[in-house]
Amino acid sequence: MTEIIVEPSGKIINCEPGQKLSEALSRAGIDIPMPCGGAGTCGKCLVRIIEGHSQPQPAETKLLTKEQIAMNFRLACQTTVTGDMRIRLTESRDSLPHQILTDSSTNGRRHIFAAVKKTYVELPEPSLEDGRSDLRRLCEAVCQKDCKPPKVGLKTLRRLPAVLREAQFKGTATVCQNKLIDFEPGDTTDNCYGVAVDIGTTTVAAAILDLTNGDRLAVDSALNPQVKCGDDVVSRINYCGSEPEGLKTIQTLIVNCMRTLIQNLCEKTGVQPDNIYEVTIAGNTTMEQLFTGVDPKSIGEMPFVSTFSRGLLLEAEDFALPVNEAARVYLFPIIGGFVGGDTSACILSSEIYNEKECVLMVDIGTNGEIILLAGGKLYAASTAAGPALEGARISKGMRAAAGAIDRVNIENDDIAFTVIGGAEPVGICGSALIDAIAILLEINVMNQTGQMISPENSDGLPPKIAARITKGDNGQSEFLIAQTPQGEKITLTQKDVREFQLAVGAIRAGVNIMLKKAGVGFEDVSKMLLAGGFGSFIRRSRAQRAGLLPLEIDREKIDYIGNASLAGAELGLLSIKARDLIDSICGKIEHIELSLDTDFQMEFASAMIFPG
Amino acid sequence: MTEIIVEPSGKIINCEPGQKLSEALSRAGIDIPMPCGGAGTCGKCLVRIIEGHSQPQPAETKLLTKEQIAMNFRLACQTTVTGDMRIRLTESRDSLPHQILTDSSTNGRRHIFAAVKKTYVELPEPSLEDGRSDLRRLCEAVCQKDCKPPKVGLKTLRRLPAVLREAQFKGTATVCQNKLIDFEPGDTTDNCYGVAVDIGTTTVAAAILDLTNGDRLAVDSALNPQVKCGDDVVSRINYCGSEPEGLKTIQTLIVNCMRTLIQNLCEKTGVQPDNIYEVTIAGNTTMEQLFTGVDPKSIGEMPFVSTFSRGLLLEAEDFALPVNEAARVYLFPIIGGFVGGDTSACILSSEIYNEKECVLMVDIGTNGEIILLAGGKLYAASTAAGPALEGARISKGMRAAAGAIDRVNIENDDIAFTVIGGAEPVGICGSALIDAIAILLEINVMNQTGQMISPENSDGLPPKIAARITKGDNGQSEFLIAQTPQGEKITLTQKDVREFQLAVGAIRAGVNIMLKKAGVGFEDVSKMLLAGGFGSFIRRSRAQRAGLLPLEIDREKIDYIGNASLAGAELGLLSIKARDLIDSICGKIEHIELSLDTDFQMEFASAMIFPG
Repeated sequence: MTEIIVEPSGKIINCEPGQKLSEALSRAGIDIPMPCGGAGTCGKCLVRIIEGHSQPQPAETKLLTKEQIAMNFRLACQTTVTGDMRIRLTESRDSLPHQILTDSSTNGRRHIFAAVKKTYVELPEPSLEDGRSDLRRLCEAVCQKDCKPPKVGLKTLRRLPAVLREAQFKGTATVCQNKLIDFEPGDTTDNCYGVAVDIGTTTVAAAILDLTNGDRLAVDSALNPQVKCGDDVVSRINYCGSEPEGLKTIQTLIVNCMRTLIQNLCEKTGVQPDNIYEVTIAGNTTMEQLFTGVDPKSIGEMPFVSTFSRGLLLEAEDFALPVNEAARVYLFPIIGGFVGGDTSACILSSEIYNEKECVLMVDIGTNGEIILLAGGKLYAASTAAGPALEGARISKGMRAAAGAIDRVNIENDDIAFTVIGGAEPVGICGSALIDAIAILLEINVMNQTGQMISPENSDGLPPKIAARITKGDNGQSEFLIAQTPQGEKITLTQKDVREFQLAVGAIRAGVNIMLKKAGVGFEDVSKMLLAGGFGSFIRRSRAQRAGLLPLEIDREKIDYIGNASLAGAELGLLSIKARDLIDSICGKIEHIELSLDTDFQMEFASAMIFPG
Repeated sequence: MTEIIVEPSGKIINCEPGQKLSEALSRAGIDIPMPCGGAGTCGKCLVRIIEGHSQPQPAETKLLTKEQIAMNFRLACQTTVTGDMRIRLTESRDSLPHQILTDSSTNGRRHIFAAVKKTYVELPEPSLEDGRSDLRRLCEAVCQKDCKPPKVGLKTLRRLPAVLREAQFKGTATVCQNKLIDFEPGDTTDNCYGVAVDIGTTTVAAAILDLTNGDRLAVDSALNPQVKCGDDVVSRINYCGSEPEGLKTIQTLIVNCMRTLIQNLCEKTGVQPDNIYEVTIAGNTTMEQLFTGVDPKSIGEMPFVSTFSRGLLLEAEDFALPVNEAARVYLFPIIGGFVGGDTSACILSSEIYNEKECVLMVDIGTNGEIILLAGGKLYAASTAAGPALEGARISKGMRAAAGAIDRVNIENDDIAFTVIGGAEPVGICGSALIDAIAILLEINVMNQTGQMISPENSDGLPPKIAARITKGDNGQSEFLIAQTPQGEKITLTQKDVREFQLAVGAIRAGVNIMLKKAGVGFEDVSKMLLAGGFGSFIRRSRAQRAGLLPLEIDREKIDYIGNASLAGAELGLLSIKARDLIDSICGKIEHIELSLDTDFQMEFASAMIFPG
């Protein structure tokens, strides 16, 4: 047995030599992203080998830069464990905007402009000749010449004299945008972390980042527990107005959920909550406002006005999050109406604002957001797609977590599938739902209107396929995708198809109206970006077949960019310049209120028909 | 009977026509300062007559400017009530620095640069064409063009949507240094107040100011309740180290005292606590640190280092002061060692930093502070004078409040005195103590060493004076100054004289050493300023006779400037520019540690002898 020490947590795992490193990590319960399924093509499982050796494999020399190879960066899926190792988990940030975080003059090293900075200092001890106060002594050592002296909070001030003396005037000062927020004995400059959160209507995702180098150390996600108060934003707003203490209840649910996620991230990585200094949040208008505990009533009524819109800095203490007591919470700016901070975060991470030509971006969630860049101007709209693509309202739906079927294929005239984490299937997530719909249309199990054939009419189908079509309790057809070892059937029902049609129809109708408003057509679109936390990368052909992506746009022009909202929240954590940038961009975006458009209902109805 | 409406409280008082306005106010329990005793020479009882008429009297035309007369400013002591009036209490600010608060180009009107600003706005209501968020709508109306959008706290944000709508989008926004801290329905721009506090070791004084025009509306003072934990700073520091929960106890005492003072000020003026937006505090190093609840241990030990020194902004909420929940507390910068924010406040209000020649300033308190400007450089030192001049450790001593004897004279070969508020005497305050010591020396009741003659040796004295000399229980002489209606004797004891000698000796020794350090002599001093809250203006001849002021300095060069620390705290309330100014000045002051000077004890011993 060999031993692998996994940093930053320091966890020790054991495995048989000859195993792939990715496999060893996975068996030990350490999830690393591997959307390419271990083919060595996506680069998401990047690790750094600190001790031990691994000969670079062809896939690695192809994907990684020479500098990365030289610095012992490797892909966990390509690395064979041959002896004891010490590795550091990390993640490639190739998808993040280069303009903000990288500088080509420094060999591609990212520039971090985090709000929080830790500095180790060794101070001269006070003497009769040098009677400066504790705070001044510290600040003059931390500040660059001529900078303003940091402010300080009362709690930090009260701790300062004792800590300074216990530490013999050697320690680490934490300064957050000109405020001294902590002083710790010894050199703790490496322990500087932040958490980025994407609060979706249905799914909440969080990532913990090392603010000294920008590395993402772990991610976690959970169902938004507010779903029990309503599964879309309007029903949650109504809940606040109709239930006694409704706002408080619904706020507590999301705050508790974030608390659990942050605790999980700390456990996964060994990071101390005290060393988390900032939390950035990207959520739609309603999600952000509910998090703050501000009554969302005015968002739900004409003319759909939120209480705040610019990027907002609050105290983490007001939410009792398990982070440093002086930590802050940054909420991404709201664009208008229901188009909120998740969209601004998507705009930030996708860099759509930098494009020259016409670009369309769709962020799929329970609230679907559509962003269009046309004629140098940004337009944004929101459409109630419903939670189908996040697995809710789908009979066997689930979010993209271990046990979710994330891919469905036809192999040997039968259905084949893959499961996240390689485990037994439990349900079906968004990417597999798109696959399944596309396949059922392709193999004629379903027609253009979404009507499934009944078992008695399945004669022309391959026998294994035909056998999967049954009648449910309600007398409607359903299609068997998988069966759990316990014999539970994972099927796609007629009602599931209808939910999917509603989601896709809302988005396509929105896209059509946005293009019309901006006076452009599909032929003008140079690029289309699809964002969302479905699970695997979705196949563009399947998404077009299932009606999610317009057939009118050439397949090569379409890119799936993953959870761009979370990526934006991470950027906001790493760069206060990025926050200023998105705040100023948001001030210039034209918000289009789709619900007020007279054509919307008609567009919606026709968009529910699958492409022929 | 006529009716007088007294603003800003709106209190209505009745009086007989023909009375002086000052008398009418005093009978109604409204104290206005009148240190000249109603002679119309000090200008402290300035009021503005809003309705009603008063012919200017000779004393008024002499003291006030033409503009002031034209604007119906009058002296309450010179104004005869002839009919119904509406007046506004105010106070001349002639003694405050002109550089910061007045601008000659605007007819002497003060420029207020308070941190807090209230703006009344009438906002367009939200519509489909104008879907800006509540906060953005408000901020864009409040901000000047191109200014940064204000930040906002969570509590204000949570209240905002409901208050805005209840007020039909018309109301007053309160912004404190780029943070929106309140929104109230209607126009409340006139209700903008601040409280300045001078925390002395023995006495705490507070003033409430109208931040829209700088007027001081009321003052109040109290004994610092920490005296029960020790009557000087060193014993208080020791108390924190030796008593369980000592720091907490001692901090709670001062915070509670401030709470009571602020409540009193609100009651006197009718100001709502919610409309107090800032509190400035000037106190010596120990007083400021104890207020913040930061362990003062390091101040009490070599090398006497405080925890903070620059001007400090904290949240009033952390001290549960009866002010607006978003109000802030500003602490004046500490110069070094025991020389703290009271001294920096004195420097600010005295404008000593603007002088060209050599100037000496002494702030008399339990901690006596000495400031010297010589050769363009400021020096500062602190000396443990003890609380005698604030009435503590003096058998019948009291602070300068109603009932205190504040003046002692010789009239018709006997003792005469005046009492603050014109009431019956209760005790004796600092200014009367100086008077009494000077008189006893003059009429040979006491010799240069401070020894009082015994009753049996009083034959040569005028009989009424001789009759006042008795023997106390301890067999030592004492001198009767007054008797209360209840027959209680207010005497000056031999021990009181010794306490006075200690105080005066410490200050004079400090002055001597400071001059020596700076390489200047008394002959170089172009001006000497004496600050402190003794009560009445002290007479220079008396203070010189009693040894408090050096005989070597020409009488015309000496000025008594009152409670300059409180005046400085008031300036800090009215002008954030003044805060920046004093912070930068303090960085350049040379702090001299008198206790380390080998000559100090010898100087002290010889300075205890009264001038011959």
